[in-house]
Amino acid sequence: MSEAQPSTPQNSSAPQGSRDGPHDTIYIGKKPLMAYVTSTLIQLANQPKVTIKARGLSIGRAVDVSQITIKRMESAGYKIGDVRIGSETVKSEDGRTRNVSTIEIEIRKD
Amino acid sequence: MSEAQPSTPQNSSAPQGSRDGPHDTIYIGKKPLMAYVTSTLIQLANQPKVTIKARGLSIGRAVDVSQITIKRMESAGYKIGDVRIGSETVKSEDGRTRNVSTIEIEIRKD
Repeated sequence: MSEAQPSTPQNSSAPQGSRDGPHDTIYIGKKPLMAYVTSTLIQLANQPKVTIKARGLSIGRAVDVSQITIKRMESAGYKIGDVRIGSETVKSEDGRTRNVSTIEIEIRKD
Repeated sequence: MSEAQPSTPQNSSAPQGSRDGPHDTIYIGKKPLMAYVTSTLIQLANQPKVTIKARGLSIGRAVDVSQITIKRMESAGYKIGDVRIGSETVKSEDGRTRNVSTIEIEIRKD
């Protein structure tokens, strides 16, 4: 799922998207929604496209983050791009594998 | 967030009110996941495209239903089509309005 984006030099204090991929991705977890909205807005100030990713129970929250962000940014020409859904296989604690749903939401300049 | 956002098309292709129109929409609620998977499979036996819709906390479940369905049907040539996200304004019990995120997932014959 890694994107072959040229990685732009990144402010190292950027709060999110610093896992291992290119720094244009926001991973949705358990923090308050607005933390992810803020991270998304910061990334959009630096690059034309940001991808919001989540899996399992965080999928609904990822949609919320995208909608709050778009509401603030659509007057500046940003909009929802591709929305991709899929599933990943994860190994649970008892050693069995199960599938978890995933979502990727692009926000980009028109 | 008004429903007239150009970036978040709502109900554009699949009419609400599936009671009188063609039954090509599955609304995800609180039933067990497999109930919706079964409904989706039945609809796909009758028509080339089905749209799975959900809002709020059910959004993750809608993605689950689509993934389980596709896993069973992809050998028959079905796949995920457009995935649209958006938001709707709902009135809560205290009379205030708030926004709820929505998702629409198309499953169609290739």
